[in-house]
Amino acid sequence: MKKLLLLSTGGTIASVASNAGLVPKETGEELIKMLGKLPYDIHVEDILQLDSSNIQPEEWKFIAQNIYKYRNDYDGIVVSHGTDTMAYTASMLSFMLKNINIPVVLTGSQVPINVVLSDAHDNLRLAFAAAATCPPDIYLAFHNKVMLGCRSVKVRTTNFDAFESVNVPPVATVSSDGLVFNTDDHFQKKHDGEPVLNTKINSHVSLVKLFPGFDPNLLFAMVDSGCRGIVIEAYGLGGMNFIRRNMVAAIGKLIRRGIPVVASSQCLYERSDLTKYEVGREALLEGAISACDMTSESAITKLMWALGQGMDVHEIDDFFNTNVAGEVTLK
Amino acid sequence: MKKLLLLSTGGTIASVASNAGLVPKETGEELIKMLGKLPYDIHVEDILQLDSSNIQPEEWKFIAQNIYKYRNDYDGIVVSHGTDTMAYTASMLSFMLKNINIPVVLTGSQVPINVVLSDAHDNLRLAFAAAATCPPDIYLAFHNKVMLGCRSVKVRTTNFDAFESVNVPPVATVSSDGLVFNTDDHFQKKHDGEPVLNTKINSHVSLVKLFPGFDPNLLFAMVDSGCRGIVIEAYGLGGMNFIRRNMVAAIGKLIRRGIPVVASSQCLYERSDLTKYEVGREALLEGAISACDMTSESAITKLMWALGQGMDVHEIDDFFNTNVAGEVTLK
Repeated sequence: MKKLLLLSTGGTIASVASNAGLVPKETGEELIKMLGKLPYDIHVEDILQLDSSNIQPEEWKFIAQNIYKYRNDYDGIVVSHGTDTMAYTASMLSFMLKNINIPVVLTGSQVPINVVLSDAHDNLRLAFAAAATCPPDIYLAFHNKVMLGCRSVKVRTTNFDAFESVNVPPVATVSSDGLVFNTDDHFQKKHDGEPVLNTKINSHVSLVKLFPGFDPNLLFAMVDSGCRGIVIEAYGLGGMNFIRRNMVAAIGKLIRRGIPVVASSQCLYERSDLTKYEVGREALLEGAISACDMTSESAITKLMWALGQGMDVHEIDDFFNTNVAGEVTLK
Repeated sequence: MKKLLLLSTGGTIASVASNAGLVPKETGEELIKMLGKLPYDIHVEDILQLDSSNIQPEEWKFIAQNIYKYRNDYDGIVVSHGTDTMAYTASMLSFMLKNINIPVVLTGSQVPINVVLSDAHDNLRLAFAAAATCPPDIYLAFHNKVMLGCRSVKVRTTNFDAFESVNVPPVATVSSDGLVFNTDDHFQKKHDGEPVLNTKINSHVSLVKLFPGFDPNLLFAMVDSGCRGIVIEAYGLGGMNFIRRNMVAAIGKLIRRGIPVVASSQCLYERSDLTKYEVGREALLEGAISACDMTSESAITKLMWALGQGMDVHEIDDFFNTNVAGEVTLK
């Protein structure tokens, strides 16, 4: 019988009604009790009790440290987590826990587990099944889909089908045959070494969604206030304005000041490609780093991690042209 | 025979290959020539020739003025436009041209019209058909769907099915019977007056996508640099952190300084609802304005327009609780 660990961190799944709205209160033990019998030897550690809106870099480090600590004691780990920032946590864990040697599966729910028609029971059972059977990696399991953590995005605020695997298919889906694995090449990742815990990050970054009329001076204002790197969700394939309000020139200036600027797309699906249009080429010439087909969640956490390693602008450019955890499809 | 006007503004649809990448060159007349014969009396005005990454508030005003100028001379107007910022333009036109008396249909393409397998021909024919048959309003027509302009979002960077109608179904879709209209109550909007051209806006605003670790001081840095209103794409239903980095307190301070802060959701689909969780309620108590189920494109353009009218924070709160152009579903 597989020995699995539930690390509980709070979230809607563990929430109960209060005068102030829903707040996380239930322990991991209570989650397991609500769930009923499963064919696994499940242990529980309560490590946090937070609405995931309040899960931040300090908690990422703490969760990563706990996973690393228990990695040799269990066959797999499930992390129960609020849905709001789960995709960010899953992305960051992919960088902080390189070559993790067991499956780590984040899950949560849209409705608290103590509600009769909650999605928590299904999601937890899926997460335990994934932790028992998937190859080692960081996953997010939700609504009958097991996704690579660094490819998942929360796209719906209330529907049970809250997450999508962006630009790669889910790793596995539930059918009446159980978990059916996708045989895509994308998932034939080979493990190339010992697990490494590296939680050094610099979270003084910014994620800016471009819109017509955006004043590039606001980028400098942020840098002057301590921001050390910027992800710009540009238009379409990564285009940005250079007439009047000159984003392209602003990026050039920032890069020359040593501030990495990553251009992603504000379109949820498909890749950015700065080479295709004049507007994108201009930005590339100025040193903008392309996020290719990464999610914004992966781009911003990858940037924080890279800055935490002390990489300079050119090293970060190289790092973004490296597939670390399956987060990017390089041409 | 319906008399229709094509206002051409550039975009991929009118682009040709150059050493610098694709650049808009073709005139409206050339677009019509490539299209072949249509059962409409089509006239053309070339008003801009821009990649839509470079379409900004100045161009919004100019496009709105042109539509207003020609509103009584034509049965409908098609605006050819780059896809990158088309959803922003469509949203802003919905506010700048209240009660417009004819259908105005924005369209474009993912591939230039001079490429044999382009989507431009289909999209232009759809836009003309919509301009000939839809009730007066601002629309975006793309890939067999006619969407309310203020509900459309570009979600795919390369696929022909680039736009989605978010949180309401498309107004009409193409079938072998032609345009099939959705009979949803949402579209039973009554026109309640004369067309009004009002292009007064204040584009000194910012659109911030929240992520774990975001430093709320960057909001103050932007305001100190001239930013007069902020849309925050918060988590899930509109949650944001208040532990350590206190976004909720920062919003309170900004509102007391007269800076409106609108909370939308970074989830593409479904509504924000600040009342449901403790984290959202705290933000509401501090005066955050809920974007409900609006797109970010509509929220940021509505905020610019409201600021342009000289509204204060409380008036903007009321204005966001008003459905102006079908952009929001109020509870």
